Amino acid sequence: MIPKFNYDANGLIPAIVQDATSRRVLMMAWMNEGALRMTLETGFMHYWSRSRQKFWLKGETSGHTQRLVRWAADCDGDTLLFEVEQEGGSCHTCFASCFFQTFASDATPITITEIRIFDPDKAYHA
Amino acid sequence: MIPKFNYDANGLIPAIVQDATSRRVLMMAWMNEGALRMTLETGFMHYWSRSRQKFWLKGETSGHTQRLVRWAADCDGDTLLFEVEQEGGSCHTCFASCFFQTFASDATPITITEIRIFDPDKAYHA
Repeated sequence: MIPKFNYDANGLIPAIVQDATSRRVLMMAWMNEGALRMTLETGFMHYWSRSRQKFWLKGETSGHTQRLVRWAADCDGDTLLFEVEQEGGSCHTCFASCFFQTFASDATPITITEIRIFDPDKAYHA
Repeated sequence: MIPKFNYDANGLIPAIVQDATSRRVLMMAWMNEGALRMTLETGFMHYWSRSRQKFWLKGETSGHTQRLVRWAADCDGDTLLFEVEQEGGSCHTCFASCFFQTFASDATPITITEIRIFDPDKAYHA
């Protein structure tokens, strides 16, 4: 029985995804109750794609799945947090985390020194 | 010069907030460009309150401010991540993080063993 979370007007709730070991924040995506149910039933992260209007098993194409380790809701029940074991990298641009672009306090982008951890030609197919 | 992020139809962008040292995720809130500008200019986290339709300096009432340490945007430019030094606790329910309620893989709420780190009567005033 999934608790009644506070989904938005479109039935969606933000899902923050964090590496269970390093605690690095990897990405944020959106879930509806179906995606949450599929995640809990399979143990692998599923989301709702707003652009494609369909469920999305993370890693379905790339193999970069996210195994669920722990999860929590916030005090308002309107945001979920998932700690995962990430296979490969979480970002479609081939970085470990989607948050690879940092900024200085004056908002100047800081040069990216992190390296891409996989080859996009091997991970994604047209 | 603040980069052009991808704000939603209401001019808002989700801000994930993480403890800069422990990397625990503390909360998620919403920003508009003004809140981001105020954050960068002051070095303290500001948000946009959707319910009150006003800017909100975190800790304005409670004293539980968040000093900005590092920040990043995600690959789509539609989510921001802030690492902060949190004074006191981030949650208005007096827990260190808003994500204090964890769940088992069958969605059963796990008993909260964490303790409240401050007294709400002292932190918030009617």
